[in-house]
Amino acid sequence: MAKMLGKDSTCSIARTLEVLGDAWTVLIIREALVAGSTRFQEFRDALGIAPNILSNRLEPLVEKGIFERRVYRESGERSRHEYVLTEEGRGLNVVIAALADWGRACRPQTDGTSPCFTSVDDGAVAELAFVTQGGERLAPGELVARRTEDARLGKS
Amino acid sequence: MAKMLGKDSTCSIARTLEVLGDAWTVLIIREALVAGSTRFQEFRDALGIAPNILSNRLEPLVEKGIFERRVYRESGERSRHEYVLTEEGRGLNVVIAALADWGRACRPQTDGTSPCFTSVDDGAVAELAFVTQGGERLAPGELVARRTEDARLGKS
Repeated sequence: MAKMLGKDSTCSIARTLEVLGDAWTVLIIREALVAGSTRFQEFRDALGIAPNILSNRLEPLVEKGIFERRVYRESGERSRHEYVLTEEGRGLNVVIAALADWGRACRPQTDGTSPCFTSVDDGAVAELAFVTQGGERLAPGELVARRTEDARLGKS
Repeated sequence: MAKMLGKDSTCSIARTLEVLGDAWTVLIIREALVAGSTRFQEFRDALGIAPNILSNRLEPLVEKGIFERRVYRESGERSRHEYVLTEEGRGLNVVIAALADWGRACRPQTDGTSPCFTSVDDGAVAELAFVTQGGERLAPGELVARRTEDARLGKS
């Protein structure tokens, strides 16, 4: 992806898109988050992706701090790398959940599958939702958006 | 984007990525949602995008039901098209909000900007959050994901 895509150099969405790049990158992150894949061969098998395309996507994700590269070695084999999501990488579960929610709602499929998110603590199922400070949940259609300085927005 | 990207033909995330295609598409939807742009020239000016690239992104978004194309005519000018988000298109505000939240949290920028979402009804600010059925908000780091059949997941 081109640097500074679009004219608005302040846009937080464009900053995320610089990391996510293309759809393969998003699916690699899905595999890591949802299937727990860490090894090159696991990503390759799960996605049916050509090795050079996979390499070309994993390397920038390491450089950008989404994956940490670690060495592992199985007995009798040469040492290899595995790719473990960093805290920032795991935080992309918000984006993955949003993509899944829209696909499920607007492109329903009888045998469809999506990630289900549960609390590490107690296993409670959590859904992504728009919530007011008073705790009210609002449907996407009940909202309007306007451009605002990040400094005036709370931490998410 | 290739059809059936990845081997998992059931994935709700891949279905959404078939619509969003690439980063330009996401920025076009951002402009429509956040700036209220509807006209070709508005998108062009806001994004600094080449006309052919813009056309190549808008047409499939009309075919896929994200924008409705309408005719308008200003006095003394030829009739032109405008592109109005459908209900499904407006529902992509979940994806836009998720991208903005991650960018703001993990790629902070002093002069950064993001969409702020407010209730149509009463103007209350709403944030995207993972929420349990009991109403508890969980941080992205407090969650794990597993692949689940859509039929077993609730409507979002």
